Amino acid sequence: MDAVTTATPADAAPLTPQQYGVGARLTLSVYDSDYVRIILDALESADATGLDIDTGDISTFVGGPERRIVGYVREVIAAAAASGAHVSASVLLSRGCPGELQCELPAGTTALGADDVSLAPSGVRARAHWSLYPLLDADHGTDHGGESGGEADHMAAIGRAIDHARETGVYDGSDHYATRLDGDLSAVLETAANAWIAVGRTVQHVTTHLTISLNSPTSIRPTLSGPPAAGAGR
Amino acid sequence: MDAVTTATPADAAPLTPQQYGVGARLTLSVYDSDYVRIILDALESADATGLDIDTGDISTFVGGPERRIVGYVREVIAAAAASGAHVSASVLLSRGCPGELQCELPAGTTALGADDVSLAPSGVRARAHWSLYPLLDADHGTDHGGESGGEADHMAAIGRAIDHARETGVYDGSDHYATRLDGDLSAVLETAANAWIAVGRTVQHVTTHLTISLNSPTSIRPTLSGPPAAGAGR
Repeated sequence: MDAVTTATPADAAPLTPQQYGVGARLTLSVYDSDYVRIILDALESADATGLDIDTGDISTFVGGPERRIVGYVREVIAAAAASGAHVSASVLLSRGCPGELQCELPAGTTALGADDVSLAPSGVRARAHWSLYPLLDADHGTDHGGESGGEADHMAAIGRAIDHARETGVYDGSDHYATRLDGDLSAVLETAANAWIAVGRTVQHVTTHLTISLNSPTSIRPTLSGPPAAGAGR
Repeated sequence: MDAVTTATPADAAPLTPQQYGVGARLTLSVYDSDYVRIILDALESADATGLDIDTGDISTFVGGPERRIVGYVREVIAAAAASGAHVSASVLLSRGCPGELQCELPAGTTALGADDVSLAPSGVRARAHWSLYPLLDADHGTDHGGESGGEADHMAAIGRAIDHARETGVYDGSDHYATRLDGDLSAVLETAANAWIAVGRTVQHVTTHLTISLNSPTSIRPTLSGPPAAGAGR
C-alpha cells in the first residue's frame, strides 16, 4: 500500500508538478499611484484554478503544471497592463528542485518532461530581458555534474529555442547576461517557458528569469539611455 | 609586446573586471505616478565614477569592480526609496561570463577572486528574495562540469554565507526557489554580493538574482496574502 513512498526514484509513480517543484515567483510592479487597486484587480481577474497561489510582500508564488502557471502569469500581467499604467514584472520559473538551497528531490531523479505551452495572443506588447540556467543534469546526478551528454543536450535545446525565437521574430538581440525579447506578451512568455521546458527534458533542475516591461513611455528611453548596447536598436 | 593578447589563460595578465564580465543588470520600479522624475533623480544622484553604465528601457547595465557596482546599486535604490514611494528592484549580478548564451571567456579560465564588499548602512529597510546560481566550475572547465571539488567548495561557500546571514539577522527564512532577506538595504546587498563573490573564488561563472522591496505598505500584505509560506513571519 505504501509502495510509492518507499520506492526508489527509478520505479516510483510519476511525480506531480508540485512534487517535482514546478512553479513561479512573480513580482508585479505598477508605476502608478493607484497601484494597490491595479495589482489587486489583476490578481483577482486571473484564473487560479488548479494552482497553489501564495502572495507575500515581495513576490507571489505560483505552483502547478507549466501550462497553467504560465497562463496565470500572462493573465495577471496583461490585466495590470490593461490599466494603461507602465508595468514591469520579474518572473522566476523553476523545475526540479522544490526546496531552496538544497533540493528536496534526490539529485539524479529522472528529469520530468512536460509539453510545450501555447498561449493565445494577449494583444499587449512586451519587451524583456531573459536568462536561462540549467543547474542539475539528471543523467549525472549532481548539480553541475557531468561533462558531456547532458550538457550537449541542453545546449542544443537552448540553441533550438533561440533559433525558434529568431524565426518568430521575438528575439531582439543579446545584452550582457540576458537575451532581449520583444513581441506579444504571450509570445515572450512562450519563448522563455518552452526553452525552460525543453532543457528540463534532460536537466533536472532548471530555472529561468525574465524582467518584462510593458507600456514603457518611449520618452524615457532617450532620456535615460547612454550609448546603445551591442545588438540593441534592431 | 603583444604577450597579453597571445597568451593562454594560464599565463595571461590578470583580467580586468570588465574583461571577466563582472557586472549587474538593475530594473528599478517605482509605484508612483511621478516615477519618471524619481527614477531620473535616483540615477543622477548616484556616483558612477569608474563604472560602465548603459540604461535601456528594460534594465540598466552596470559594469566595473564588485565594490563599485554594489555601491552604485545601493545608491540608486536608496535614493528612489527616499522619495517615500513604494519601490522594488530586480538585480542580477554576474561574474565570469561576459557574453550572453555562450561565454566569451574560454571555459576553465582561472576563477578571478575579489574582496568582500562592505557598505555603510543606508538607513532604509529592505526585504528581498534571493537566488544564487553557480554555473561553471573553473577547475573542471565546462559549465556544469565535475562532480566534486568545485561543487563541494561552492556548496561550502553558500553554507557559510547563509550562516553569516543568520548571525547578522539578515536571513529571514526560505521560500520556494529563494531565500528571504530582511534588513538594512546595505546588509541585504552585502549578503548577496559576498556570497556571489565567495562562490566566485572557485566557480568561474556565478550569477545571483535579487528582488528587493522597500516602503511596501503593510496594508497590502494581509490583503494580498494567502496562507503564510513555510518559514514566513519570523
